[in-house]
Amino acid sequence: MSRPDRPDRPHPEPGLRSITFRPDECTTRVPAGTTVYEAAAWIGRAIDSTCGARATCGKCRVRLREGELLVTPADHEHLNSDEIAAGWRLSCTAEVQHGTIVEVPRLMTAPKTAMTGTGRPVLLDANVHKVHLRLDQPELDDQRSDLQRIRDHLRAAGFACNAGLDVLRLMPAALRRHQFDVTAVLCGEWLIDLEPGDTTGECFGVAVDLGTTTIVGTLLDLNDGSSRGATSALNAQVVHGSDVLSRISHTMCHPEGLSELQAMAAASINGIIDTLAQGAGVPRDRIYEMTVAGNATMIHLLLGIDPEPLSIAPFTPAITEPVFLPAADLSLTIHPRGRLYALPALGAYVGGDIVAGLLATSLPREPRLRLFVDVGTNGEIALGSDRRAVCTAAPAGPAFEGAEIACGMRAVTGAIEEVRITEESVVLRTIGERPPVGLCGSGLIDAVCQLLRRGVIDASGRMLTIEQARRTLPPSLAERVVEVDGVRAFVLAAGERDAKAVILTQKDVRQLQFAKGAIATGIQVLMKEMKVSADDLDEVLLGGAFGTYIHPAAARAIGLVPAVSLDRVRAVGNTAGEGAKIALLSTRERKAAEEMPRRVEYIELSGRTDFNDLFMAALAFPPPRC
Amino acid sequence: MSRPDRPDRPHPEPGLRSITFRPDECTTRVPAGTTVYEAAAWIGRAIDSTCGARATCGKCRVRLREGELLVTPADHEHLNSDEIAAGWRLSCTAEVQHGTIVEVPRLMTAPKTAMTGTGRPVLLDANVHKVHLRLDQPELDDQRSDLQRIRDHLRAAGFACNAGLDVLRLMPAALRRHQFDVTAVLCGEWLIDLEPGDTTGECFGVAVDLGTTTIVGTLLDLNDGSSRGATSALNAQVVHGSDVLSRISHTMCHPEGLSELQAMAAASINGIIDTLAQGAGVPRDRIYEMTVAGNATMIHLLLGIDPEPLSIAPFTPAITEPVFLPAADLSLTIHPRGRLYALPALGAYVGGDIVAGLLATSLPREPRLRLFVDVGTNGEIALGSDRRAVCTAAPAGPAFEGAEIACGMRAVTGAIEEVRITEESVVLRTIGERPPVGLCGSGLIDAVCQLLRRGVIDASGRMLTIEQARRTLPPSLAERVVEVDGVRAFVLAAGERDAKAVILTQKDVRQLQFAKGAIATGIQVLMKEMKVSADDLDEVLLGGAFGTYIHPAAARAIGLVPAVSLDRVRAVGNTAGEGAKIALLSTRERKAAEEMPRRVEYIELSGRTDFNDLFMAALAFPPPRC
Repeated sequence: MSRPDRPDRPHPEPGLRSITFRPDECTTRVPAGTTVYEAAAWIGRAIDSTCGARATCGKCRVRLREGELLVTPADHEHLNSDEIAAGWRLSCTAEVQHGTIVEVPRLMTAPKTAMTGTGRPVLLDANVHKVHLRLDQPELDDQRSDLQRIRDHLRAAGFACNAGLDVLRLMPAALRRHQFDVTAVLCGEWLIDLEPGDTTGECFGVAVDLGTTTIVGTLLDLNDGSSRGATSALNAQVVHGSDVLSRISHTMCHPEGLSELQAMAAASINGIIDTLAQGAGVPRDRIYEMTVAGNATMIHLLLGIDPEPLSIAPFTPAITEPVFLPAADLSLTIHPRGRLYALPALGAYVGGDIVAGLLATSLPREPRLRLFVDVGTNGEIALGSDRRAVCTAAPAGPAFEGAEIACGMRAVTGAIEEVRITEESVVLRTIGERPPVGLCGSGLIDAVCQLLRRGVIDASGRMLTIEQARRTLPPSLAERVVEVDGVRAFVLAAGERDAKAVILTQKDVRQLQFAKGAIATGIQVLMKEMKVSADDLDEVLLGGAFGTYIHPAAARAIGLVPAVSLDRVRAVGNTAGEGAKIALLSTRERKAAEEMPRRVEYIELSGRTDFNDLFMAALAFPPPRC
Repeated sequence: MSRPDRPDRPHPEPGLRSITFRPDECTTRVPAGTTVYEAAAWIGRAIDSTCGARATCGKCRVRLREGELLVTPADHEHLNSDEIAAGWRLSCTAEVQHGTIVEVPRLMTAPKTAMTGTGRPVLLDANVHKVHLRLDQPELDDQRSDLQRIRDHLRAAGFACNAGLDVLRLMPAALRRHQFDVTAVLCGEWLIDLEPGDTTGECFGVAVDLGTTTIVGTLLDLNDGSSRGATSALNAQVVHGSDVLSRISHTMCHPEGLSELQAMAAASINGIIDTLAQGAGVPRDRIYEMTVAGNATMIHLLLGIDPEPLSIAPFTPAITEPVFLPAADLSLTIHPRGRLYALPALGAYVGGDIVAGLLATSLPREPRLRLFVDVGTNGEIALGSDRRAVCTAAPAGPAFEGAEIACGMRAVTGAIEEVRITEESVVLRTIGERPPVGLCGSGLIDAVCQLLRRGVIDASGRMLTIEQARRTLPPSLAERVVEVDGVRAFVLAAGERDAKAVILTQKDVRQLQFAKGAIATGIQVLMKEMKVSADDLDEVLLGGAFGTYIHPAAARAIGLVPAVSLDRVRAVGNTAGEGAKIALLSTRERKAAEEMPRRVEYIELSGRTDFNDLFMAALAFPPPRC
C-alpha cells in the first residue's frame, strides 16, 4: 500500500546538493539521491512527462551541462547512444549526487495549470489518466493475452500498467462487448477500469480535508483542474468527543470503538461525496481518486488502525508514510476500484494536514523565512525556508475551539467572532449577524485583546476586581465587571428576553493564556532551534479553518504570534484542504509532499528541558502596542 | 498483481548476448537487458543474495572482467567508489548489453540445495523469509512510526518491505503485546505477519499441480526444502466434464458457472491443504505461500476469470503473465495473508504446467537438444536447447485419457497398463494387480503396439478381418479377433464370472491414430521449424502424469515420438508438480520461469498451411522395429 519507490533513507539527510535548471537559471538544493525530476517538482519547475516519473514515457529528458548524472537502464531504453553521449538523461531516473546544472527543453505544449486557494498556480498533472484504446483484435498470428494487448498499447502511450484481480475478471468481457474500443482508466499505474468507447472527457477526483470537527470536500475536474463544487459536514465522530484524545479514548474503552469510528469517518466522507456528485451531476463511478489530508489520529481512525500509541508517551504513530489503497477497502464510495491517497505525516502530532499546509504554502520550498501556525487543539507550527525547515506541535488544549470556556462555542451562527470595546460601549459582531449566543475562538482572542487594551486585564492575565473596576474604568465598562459563582467575569452581552448572557471569566482568560502560551512556546523553541528572531521573519501565516478567523492584530496583541509588523501576518485559510486539492491535481506536488518528511525536521517539545521555563514566560501577555 | 518488474520487451528478442561466469568459466547467452543475476539463475549458477534480487541486501556483487556493465544507483548505495572503479557491480541491477565476463566471489556459506523429483538439485532460495526482530522500543527521542521501525530493521537485514492495510491494522498491538520482540514474515516484499517471539523455525509452503483431472499438492519445509507430505485429489470440477472445453462450456451455459468452478477448484485445493497440514502436524497459518502450475484454462478458472476466449479461435487468454496475489482472494486457506504464485503461460494451450515442465527439465537452459512431450488431451510439445527453443500444443483428443475408447478408463485400479502378446497368449498387467476392468492410455498404446507387432493391425491401422485372422494368426490369437456390433475388435480379456470382457476395437485404433498423429505432427512441425531431425535429438522426455506410464518402446513403436534409440527416451514423471515445487523453493528458478515466455517461441498449429498434410502422413504407424 504505502509505496517504497526506493529504499528509505536516513532522516534528515546530511548535506544538500545544488542543482540549477537552465535556461531559467533557477537553483535549488536537494538531498543527494533526489532525482532531477523531483528536484524540479520541489521548486515547481515544469519538466515534460506523461507517465508521472515512472520511466515509461521517456518525455522527461534533460541535458547535463555541468556535474555528473549516471546513465541508467531507462536512459538506454529511451535514448540512443548519441543522445546519451551528448548528455541527455531521463530526469526521472537521474539522481543528483553532486552540484549539477541541467538544461530543460522548452515544453512542447503549454502546461495546464490550476490556480489554488493560496494563490499558487499548480501544474495540472493528475495521477488519474484516461487513455482511449482502439486495440487490434486478436488473430491467430496475434494471440497476445488481453492484458498484454492493453499493456503494449499503454506502453506505446507512455504508461506502465498493473491490474488487480477485479479488473482481470472484467477484462475479457469489457474488451469483447465493445469490439476492443475502450477507455483505460489508470490510477497511478493501476488499471482500474475499461469503459466502453471514449470517456476521456469525464475524469473526476475528490480532495478531502478530514478534520477532527469538520470535513471539507472538493470535487475537481481532473482534465482542467476546475472545481465542480465544495461542501463540508461535521465529522460524525464528534458524538464521541470533540478532540483527538477523546476519540482515541473511545477506541480504548469500547471493543468495537475503532471500527465504529472508522465507519463514522467513512460515512461522513461518503455523505460529502454524495452531495458533491449530485450537485455537479457527476456519477460517482466517474470519481476515480480521492486525496485525504488529516491529522495522524484522523488518518489512523479512517484506516481502522489502532491509534492508542499516539495518545501515550512516547507518542508513536503506526504509520506516517503516505498511503495509496483502494477506496473500497475503507468503504468509501467513489468508483468501485478508485483509490485513496493519504498525505504522509511528519510525526504523531504533525500530520498529513500540516504536510498539506506546507504544500499549500510552499514554506520549505521557497527562499523566504516564514512561520506557519495552524491554530487548533494542537497548535502545529512550522518555521523555515528552502534552506532548512523545522516543525513541532504544541498542546494548546481546546480553548481555541471554544471548549472549556464558560460561554465558549464552535464558530457557528450566533458565535461572537469580533469584539470592539471603546470607552463607552462593547460592539460585537456575530456569525450570521444573529443575537450573540457564545464566544468562538476568534471572538475569545478579540475580547481578551480588547480587555487588555482597556486595562480590564493586566499583562499577567489578572482581571480587575469589581472594586478596582469601579475605581479605574468608565462606568459603562465598570458595570460589566461582575462576579459569577465567586469567579470574576466581564459581561460581553447582557442577554435580552430569553437569551442568556455571554460572559468572559477570569478562568477563560487563564485557559486562553495556557493555549496561546503553548503555541508561543512552540514558536520560540523553533526560532531558537533555527537561531532566528522575530525580525528575521519574512511572513507569519495563520492557517487552519480557525486561523482564518483570527485577526492578525489580536493574535499579535495576545502574544500568540511573534511581534512582527502586521503587514507580515497573513491568514491563509484552510491550507489542509488546499494541500489535498494540490495533491489531487499534481503528482509532482505529491512527490514534494513525500519529500517533506526528509526536508522538515520534527522537534518534539515534551523531550525538551527548556520547555517549562519558556512556557511560564510565554503565559504573560505582551505589553500593549495597538 | 502480476508484477511488471520492468517494462515488457518485444518477444522474441532478436539476438542474444553471451555472458561468462568465472572462475567456473560457464557461459550462457541471454537477451540484452537481462541482469547478470538473472543470467546466472538461468543456468543455475549461484550468486549470493538474501533479498531475492531486489537490490536491498547488497550481497550479490560480481566483478566485471570484460565488457561493460553500467553503474546503477543501487551500486552507489551498496558499494564505495573504489569498489565501483575496480569493476564491482550488484549483479541484480547490472544489465547485460554486450558480451560480458564477470567473476563471481566464492559463496561465503555453502548454499542449501534441495533435490527435486527430476534429479536436479535446486538452490534453496524461497520467496518467504522470516526475520526475528528485537526492535528498540519507542522513546521520546525515537518516535519513528511502527512501520518505519520495522522497515529500518528489515532493511539492515537486507530486505525491502511493503505492508497492506490488514497488516497495518494488526501491527501496533502485535508489537506492543510482545514487547517489540516478533518475527516478521515476508512473502516476497509483502510483510504478511508479525508473530510473537522467534518462529523462524516454522516456515512452510505448498506446491500445487492443478490438473484438469487430478490435483497434486506437496507440503514443503521452506527452511530446508524437505517434503513434509504429498497428496492428490480429483479436481471437483470433473462433474462438469473431463476436459477443458467442457469446463469452459459450463461457464458459458450457466450464469453462475464460472464462480461455481472457481469455488470447486478452491475447495479441491483446500482439501489437499487440509490433508497435508493435518498429516504433517503443521498449522495452516504456518503455510505462507503456495505455487500453482496449471494449464491456462485451469488457472483462469481458479482466478475466476472468464475462460471463454480460450475456447474459440483465435484462442486468446486473458492473462499469460505470472500472478502473485493473496491466496484469500481466491478463498484458499493457507495463512490468512499468505500469497499465491501462479506460473506464467506461454500461450492459450501451453500453460503454466508446461512452463513448470520446462523448469523441471531445464530444457531451454541446457546445451543438449531435447524434445519434451506432455501427453494428454492436449499434447504439449517443446523442442530446443539453450540456443533456441520452440513449443506448441497439438489437439490429441481424449484417447490417451481413456475417453472415447470402447473399454477406456482412467489409470485407476483394474486398468490394464501393460500388454504383452506372444504367439500363444495375451499377458496383461493391471494397476493394483486386480482383474482387468478396462484400458487406460498406456495400456491402449501397449495393446496397439503389440497388435502391430503380431500383424493383427497393419501400418495403416486396419485390423484383420475374422477370416484374415484365422488364415494368418496362430489359433490362440485368431480366436480373439471378433466382431462387436459390426465393428472388428480384439479381445484382450474375455471376462470371467461377472466381469465384462475388455476389448480393443477398430474404432479405438483409429482414435489412437488421431491422437498420436496430432502429437507426432506437432513434433514434426517443431523439428521442421528448428531444422533438426530425429538423429539430432539428444533426448526425448515424456512428461505429465500420463507420460510416466507410457513404455518408451511402445511410444516409439506407434510413432508417437520420433524414431530415436530407446536409451534416449525417458519418462520424467509429473513435471508440472516438480516445477511448482521448484518455483516454491527458489525465487531464482521463478525468475527463470518468468524468462520462459521470452525464451521459448510459441508456434500456433492451427495457423499453419502444412498441418493437414503432415497430419495425414502421421496417422499411419511406422514400420515395426521392435
